[in-house]
Amino acid sequence: MAHEISILTEAELRKTVKLDLTVIDTVEQAFAALASGEVVMPPILSMEIPQANGEVDVKTAYIPGFDGFAIKVSPGFFDNPKIGLPSLNGLMILFSAKTGLVEALFLDNGYLTDIRTAAAGAVAARHMAPETVETAGVIGTGVQARLQIEAAHLVRPFRKVLVWGRDLANAERCAADIAASLGIEARAEADPARLVAESQLVVTTTPSREPVLKAEWLHPGLHITAMGSDQSGKNELDPEILDEANAYVCDRVSQCEKLGELRSAIEAGLWTKGKPAELGQVISGAGKGRTSAGDITVCDLTGTGAQDTAIATLARRLCIAAGSGTVITA
Amino acid sequence: MAHEISILTEAELRKTVKLDLTVIDTVEQAFAALASGEVVMPPILSMEIPQANGEVDVKTAYIPGFDGFAIKVSPGFFDNPKIGLPSLNGLMILFSAKTGLVEALFLDNGYLTDIRTAAAGAVAARHMAPETVETAGVIGTGVQARLQIEAAHLVRPFRKVLVWGRDLANAERCAADIAASLGIEARAEADPARLVAESQLVVTTTPSREPVLKAEWLHPGLHITAMGSDQSGKNELDPEILDEANAYVCDRVSQCEKLGELRSAIEAGLWTKGKPAELGQVISGAGKGRTSAGDITVCDLTGTGAQDTAIATLARRLCIAAGSGTVITA
Repeated sequence: MAHEISILTEAELRKTVKLDLTVIDTVEQAFAALASGEVVMPPILSMEIPQANGEVDVKTAYIPGFDGFAIKVSPGFFDNPKIGLPSLNGLMILFSAKTGLVEALFLDNGYLTDIRTAAAGAVAARHMAPETVETAGVIGTGVQARLQIEAAHLVRPFRKVLVWGRDLANAERCAADIAASLGIEARAEADPARLVAESQLVVTTTPSREPVLKAEWLHPGLHITAMGSDQSGKNELDPEILDEANAYVCDRVSQCEKLGELRSAIEAGLWTKGKPAELGQVISGAGKGRTSAGDITVCDLTGTGAQDTAIATLARRLCIAAGSGTVITA
Repeated sequence: MAHEISILTEAELRKTVKLDLTVIDTVEQAFAALASGEVVMPPILSMEIPQANGEVDVKTAYIPGFDGFAIKVSPGFFDNPKIGLPSLNGLMILFSAKTGLVEALFLDNGYLTDIRTAAAGAVAARHMAPETVETAGVIGTGVQARLQIEAAHLVRPFRKVLVWGRDLANAERCAADIAASLGIEARAEADPARLVAESQLVVTTTPSREPVLKAEWLHPGLHITAMGSDQSGKNELDPEILDEANAYVCDRVSQCEKLGELRSAIEAGLWTKGKPAELGQVISGAGKGRTSAGDITVCDLTGTGAQDTAIATLARRLCIAAGSGTVITA
């Protein structure tokens, strides 16, 4: 029996789905559901294609209360830049959670992932950063450095941004972009210790395999969101930080143990506090987050299929409202 | 960087991709590669959605020598018939094996799966059935009963078909369809023992959880392809048959152990011959199949991601040649 399927390109999605409070609220709802235990989120399907220096990951999750569920396919082919193509591509497919029929194809080349990842950072900032943030710092100078700061500014309207990267010129470009998009002061900071000292909120956004943020830089009233580590070899935070923080929170414990900062801390024998809370538990009040302005808090984000289902469901709604995309009867 | 993606609906695919020798040869090539050990085929990703009596499976495989790899998403929502929708739907996505870019979306609602499944039966018949088949029998009366016979007839042009099903009227309808499509004699047979006795090739195509083909019905010169079992609860062949056959062959041993006839035989303690050969090894000569006209042979098919990659790659080539489908720049 034929039914209608909406097909959206990256260009159409960029016009219709913007990083705003609606996106952040939707992703927050997904985290709350994730921690309630009712979400079904199978392990990631992963396939390597060594002949092409490539890999492909498939993520999915079902969230009760959402009309659809997404399946996201993310290929990474790391020789592509040699022939002028991006390494990362991919698409999301939205299915009806009632009938399993395909409802929409988002040929987004990772755009929706960028947005939902930044939104998760804003959810962490909303529930864990101090009420007042004057200065936000970002470590890393890529797409997520820009988007994480843009998202966090929606929930903590800080007046100043500091950017550190291994390459100062990249940090300067990133700061200029942030200043232009948010209309606030933003500058590169050559010393990451000083960046942390001056910030109440720091987001790490690097693919680093060695800590870029040291335990001796911690200070009262600091919140850190570490979102760069999403593979078992990556590590952005000094493993001692997790134990020293007043609250350390995972997006998903089972993933952070394998892919996040928690993995490094466990391997170093520096995690002694049992099962950490999840971000969704902090949202619902069932898990411990910040309890005073002087607390040091850390949120570890590895990226979840629940966020994909949330952003895909919202994207469909926004695209229908905007009349964007191509409809195919299949 | 924008690139072109072909989108094909089920109706377009039905017009362009027919069950013929080209399909069978392509699926045969996939089986040969699968047994060579170079294929990358991760375990199936599976998610249940109990709230909707639904499930979704994701399969993929990379085959060296094929330009692309497919990811197939198969939702099964078993309350759909109550609202007039089919239980099974789904799509295949074809990616370039060199760059990971999406090349084609096949909104096939399972049509390509039907075709590649029937083609696997024909590959088994080509390499394992006796040279001369006068009569073919089919147990089961659904879509695959028709397609398996149609495919097998391309490699063993038998003159007569017998059909058995639990419901005689269904068997009669199935036989009439086969007679019409192949232009040969086909009739319902009320006694499955007599069906097997008169046939040199028997295909079982049921979702049965209890054997539908008994060991005492075996006779010299019989080949059986059991393609119905694709879940751990299913079982079509008396478990003794596997051990009694001169050659028992799997599409993929690791799957047949969990989902196929081999699972039942192992559980019953009736499989004693070590690791079975795979169909691809029989094709290449590395595994034992039929060695004489009087041998009894059995092939156990559970369905592989390698077949999906094969049919999707071929479908793209055929659709480009026919100019069918919609092209989107994304």
